[in-house]
Amino acid sequence: MGKFLTSRAENYSQWYNELVVKAELAENSVVRGSMVIKPYGYAIWEKMQRVLDDMFKRTGHENAYFPLFIPKSFFSKEASHVEGFAKECAVVTHYRLKNDENGKGIIVDPEAKLEEELIVRPTSETIIWHTYKNWIQSYRDLPILINQWANVVRWEMRTRLFLRTAEFLWQEGHTAHATKEEAIEETEQMIHVYAEFAKNYMAMPVIIGRKSENERFAGALDTYTIEALMQDGKALQSGTSHFLGQNFAKAFDVKFTTKESTQEYVWATSWGVSTRLMGALIMAHSDDNGLVLPPKLAPIQVVIIPIYKNQEQLDQISEYAKKLKAELEANQISVKYDNRDTHKPGYKFADYELKGVPVRIALGPRDMENQTAEIARRDTLEKMSINQADIVARVITLLSDIQENIYNKALKFQLENTTKVDSWEEFQQLLDEKGGFLAAHWDGTKETEEKIKDATKATIRCIPLNAEDEEGKCIFTGNPSHKRVLFARAY
Amino acid sequence: MGKFLTSRAENYSQWYNELVVKAELAENSVVRGSMVIKPYGYAIWEKMQRVLDDMFKRTGHENAYFPLFIPKSFFSKEASHVEGFAKECAVVTHYRLKNDENGKGIIVDPEAKLEEELIVRPTSETIIWHTYKNWIQSYRDLPILINQWANVVRWEMRTRLFLRTAEFLWQEGHTAHATKEEAIEETEQMIHVYAEFAKNYMAMPVIIGRKSENERFAGALDTYTIEALMQDGKALQSGTSHFLGQNFAKAFDVKFTTKESTQEYVWATSWGVSTRLMGALIMAHSDDNGLVLPPKLAPIQVVIIPIYKNQEQLDQISEYAKKLKAELEANQISVKYDNRDTHKPGYKFADYELKGVPVRIALGPRDMENQTAEIARRDTLEKMSINQADIVARVITLLSDIQENIYNKALKFQLENTTKVDSWEEFQQLLDEKGGFLAAHWDGTKETEEKIKDATKATIRCIPLNAEDEEGKCIFTGNPSHKRVLFARAY
Repeated sequence: MGKFLTSRAENYSQWYNELVVKAELAENSVVRGSMVIKPYGYAIWEKMQRVLDDMFKRTGHENAYFPLFIPKSFFSKEASHVEGFAKECAVVTHYRLKNDENGKGIIVDPEAKLEEELIVRPTSETIIWHTYKNWIQSYRDLPILINQWANVVRWEMRTRLFLRTAEFLWQEGHTAHATKEEAIEETEQMIHVYAEFAKNYMAMPVIIGRKSENERFAGALDTYTIEALMQDGKALQSGTSHFLGQNFAKAFDVKFTTKESTQEYVWATSWGVSTRLMGALIMAHSDDNGLVLPPKLAPIQVVIIPIYKNQEQLDQISEYAKKLKAELEANQISVKYDNRDTHKPGYKFADYELKGVPVRIALGPRDMENQTAEIARRDTLEKMSINQADIVARVITLLSDIQENIYNKALKFQLENTTKVDSWEEFQQLLDEKGGFLAAHWDGTKETEEKIKDATKATIRCIPLNAEDEEGKCIFTGNPSHKRVLFARAY
Repeated sequence: MGKFLTSRAENYSQWYNELVVKAELAENSVVRGSMVIKPYGYAIWEKMQRVLDDMFKRTGHENAYFPLFIPKSFFSKEASHVEGFAKECAVVTHYRLKNDENGKGIIVDPEAKLEEELIVRPTSETIIWHTYKNWIQSYRDLPILINQWANVVRWEMRTRLFLRTAEFLWQEGHTAHATKEEAIEETEQMIHVYAEFAKNYMAMPVIIGRKSENERFAGALDTYTIEALMQDGKALQSGTSHFLGQNFAKAFDVKFTTKESTQEYVWATSWGVSTRLMGALIMAHSDDNGLVLPPKLAPIQVVIIPIYKNQEQLDQISEYAKKLKAELEANQISVKYDNRDTHKPGYKFADYELKGVPVRIALGPRDMENQTAEIARRDTLEKMSINQADIVARVITLLSDIQENIYNKALKFQLENTTKVDSWEEFQQLLDEKGGFLAAHWDGTKETEEKIKDATKATIRCIPLNAEDEEGKCIFTGNPSHKRVLFARAY
């Protein structure tokens, strides 16, 4: 079955598209730009949600739910926000259908036109800050630390499953604070929560940094980002956390009485990750045989496959397999025993490879005789024969080894594909020949950034938080620069 | 603070509206008919979701996600479905806004009109069956057992928080089966899952039954329902499970090859509960002091409140309170220690009563001296002084007592308010004077049901699954009937 997948070398983009569909993660729906997330893909997303939700709660956040629809006029209230978001969006203009009098089926009832159009939320700052106005009077009402799990819609013209879809699922945190310092601290805390999640669960190394002005969220004073590198050398923005200053408080007139009885505007942050993370997860680790999933996010961590020629053999294997499954499950390992008689072992092997199940245990008649089992790990495709008595302990070690190994592999790739560049020629050449992150000096201006983008399609992914002070000259203009920033072509 | 709530006797409807807002469960949003679910309300909904989700998974279901938008034409494909759902709904007609050339702010771009309007899903049968068509070829692809957690929109004219809102949150199960029998079995299984959830978690007794033809889901051959009785004697439909026959398979041409190589249409079910359950939960148990929550769904099960005159006393109490909190938490009990110095104990007592926290522990200086604590239970408002050494054991017992007690209380109320009625005069009189479920004979016709509804506003809530065979005469027409059905005025 691996053969059904275009190889990465041949056509990376096609490999990705095929993989998402063939591993049954998602598919395009009949509605332009909207996807159907299939059960196997959704199970991974659910695992991500659960871990992130726990992390949000441990850092003091609560969940709530705000309306899907936002009055059109709200988007005009924050000047830069409207430029960024109000353009490509789904607009609800009517609230009723009716049977056509001329028998042409159902039509929109022209009499049911809304006085003010409603926008399907592309992000919820406006409706949430409109709501916070009533919740905040005094410093005693602060901070507000709220997160929302929701669907949002941005009318994208070019869509790709998980990476860019018109409707997607996400979480958006929206916090309100009494001081600038506290809001900045929150912004930084949440980007580190995302980085920790990427590293410890997705096994995906990321660069934490700040966005340049050009790439900032519409309405933010500062945007922090985590940037991951995909196997084709392109970067993928995987999560962002925004310091919004008092922009939304001013737009929606949200003031509070301080301890000193003065009136101040409230300070805001927002932060989010989306089903785009699924795209990152898929591309970070997978190979030409299919998905490679980190054990901590794999819906099925271990699959047991019987190899048999007759019912008697199957019965004997099944008896042991069910016992083994129970033992593994008692160790919090999710296990599937696939005893379907409609498919051959070879098909099953390829299918679970395609689906990225971290550990496969095959049991044949000879294994039953010798009290052994064949264990295969998905990341390296290595196989080993081990004693049945050792399986549970071995699987536990193996799952943690795989989690670590794929992280290290991805980290090695990231390091090998992060290159210091000091000339414009080398910059252009490396982008085309190697890709990856290019650490280069930049003069700090919007104009230069735009010219570089126009010339090469590379953007500043971030100014890394750990970038060292270093005097240098902008690769494009030669003007002075004090630290290197990371450029890349990006998803 | 209890005084801030209108009493149920005075105005039940106002009591409910005030309670939802003052207990910080939800509030009306600026968008007509849409609510904001506040953190405390959402925390209860999350607990419901978690329990239900586990129950769905234990019965073999997986989660997935389908698009928010449905092409308008899909609604014409199933004849009765369109009548039921396509009328009052949010219609997306455009996909872009732009700056008005005359400086009038942002307007809908007339050039960005969709070729076919999109409907914000009021329920997802159509888009899901359109998708299933590609997933189902053979009997080997069946059954499909999928659930979706999502938001849906129905443009209701009269809305009330949780009970009827334009946008609401819900889960919708959509299953596909090879045989009629299996689909009916699934339909029945899921209504029993809902009834079990209502009983064991919400502490809410329900009647399980079938809907009459009039009250069936648009597109269903049979609708099962769970009906609960609220304290004002009105019924509340709390969950439904539909046997859809082959209606949607025929509408979307979904056939499969049987084991015998014939082609058959697929059999379908759908089933759902929504944030409406929050309304049921609130109304089933609460009193004039506020919410009464079943311990199994209470976000905070125990609150500890210190009573002190000086910092020294507070320090002493806090030291013990934190130890107690940890001990209770080690027993999987959620605890809040409220040591805010901005509010007095009396205020806190009333506030947690309003919020329905099942158990309150008050600790004062004399308690510290005597190694005692004052424990109060929310359901009966009883207080007792107990030894600190016994607290954990006592709280565990108390939580399970409260869960049981409020169920029994609600069951007693339901039984006392279910009345057998045999004459039309008595029927009308009881509806006005007592309310509740009226068990009466009905001739089985649509016409009679409608006439009774027109005359009294009472509808047939269900034909209970456990209704006994009994010969009788329809209370309205006098025509023969073989079993009693349950009438009530309803939410």
